[in-house]
Amino acid sequence: MLKYINVKSNNRQEFVDITAELNADISEMGMKDGIVCLFVPHTSAAITINEGADPNVRRDVITTLSRLIPKDAGYHHMEGNSDAHLKSSIIGATLCVPVEEGRLVLGTWQAVYFCEFDGPRHRRVGIKALKA
Amino acid sequence: MLKYINVKSNNRQEFVDITAELNADISEMGMKDGIVCLFVPHTSAAITINEGADPNVRRDVITTLSRLIPKDAGYHHMEGNSDAHLKSSIIGATLCVPVEEGRLVLGTWQAVYFCEFDGPRHRRVGIKALKA
Amino acid sequence: MLKYINVKSNNRQEFVDITAELNADISEMGMKDGIVCLFVPHTSAAITINEGADPNVRRDVITTLSRLIPKDAGYHHMEGNSDAHLKSSIIGATLCVPVEEGRLVLGTWQAVYFCEFDGPRHRRVGIKALKA
Repeated sequence: MLKYINVKSNNRQEFVDITAELNADISEMGMKDGIVCLFVPHTSAAITINEGADPNVRRDVITTLSRLIPKDAGYHHMEGNSDAHLKSSIIGATLCVPVEEGRLVLGTWQAVYFCEFDGPRHRRVGIKALKA
Repeated sequence: MLKYINVKSNNRQEFVDITAELNADISEMGMKDGIVCLFVPHTSAAITINEGADPNVRRDVITTLSRLIPKDAGYHHMEGNSDAHLKSSIIGATLCVPVEEGRLVLGTWQAVYFCEFDGPRHRRVGIKALKA
Repeated sequence: MLKYINVKSNNRQEFVDITAELNADISEMGMKDGIVCLFVPHTSAAITINEGADPNVRRDVITTLSRLIPKDAGYHHMEGNSDAHLKSSIIGATLCVPVEEGRLVLGTWQAVYFCEFDGPRHRRVGIKALKA
């Protein structure tokens, strides 16, 4: 089973909480028990798990990554988004998450984020489900 | 099959080698062939594979990550652990590892580490097994 | 099903595009639908997905990682490759990718790279396939 969800980013860099949508889709796919491989088919975006409660966590992650990897730093790739490609590989384009009782197995404070590094854009996140 | 193991960290930052315990649990779960999705249900910790022989490798990883991402750097999240959230997303909260003949498939020098970035604490690592 | 492919790196740091070889092996393994866990059994190498079109993207990733994590920076591990161990954990030694119709599910611009951080060497990449 493979399904895509649509994600709309509104800024150049933005973490979009997609946990609720993923759980709805996993339920709709009839997936009760197994693992899902979540992936972004984009090279200037990523997917990660982090704190879902305080929006400042996302803000600190974006700000600190940009301090380490500035948008302009004498890159050779001429499309102005080398920083986004770098962040994509550092955070990662795929994520494997267990599913139990039709829901993602996450800790109390965890949420799944689509990470936009070169928006705003219309993006997709893939869900590949493997039943136990 | 989903199982949790307990991990006790003794410092704010510490890499705990959990390879032997994971192999014991995988064996106990009757898992012979497939993959395991290892995950930490925490947002200020992570899980990674790295060299298991020289403890200085772990020390260098922790020291260098902290040079790049200091504990205090004008973060907006006010709990004093923004650096730990950042390191969690950079190293990653989940890890997919193959299993053959009832053991993790790892290279000669590889070990699996639970990465504590905001300890000391009592933590858990989840093992979700999917048989081939 | 577990299979290894051989990768030869020619420089200390180099990203080798292994997408075509992976697809050929997945096809040969008779894998039509499921996920593969790709992994490097080495602690100074990694595996990632990034842009496959412009070689400058790989160059920018390697250069920027080395700016952040220099080869020599007072490390305690005395083998001269602490930077490579660090990059291995930051990029990651394993990668979970969906398979449909006998091929890796990747975006238009995505390629899978073996990431050499301490070459030149003869290396291996493992493919563990799990059918849906």
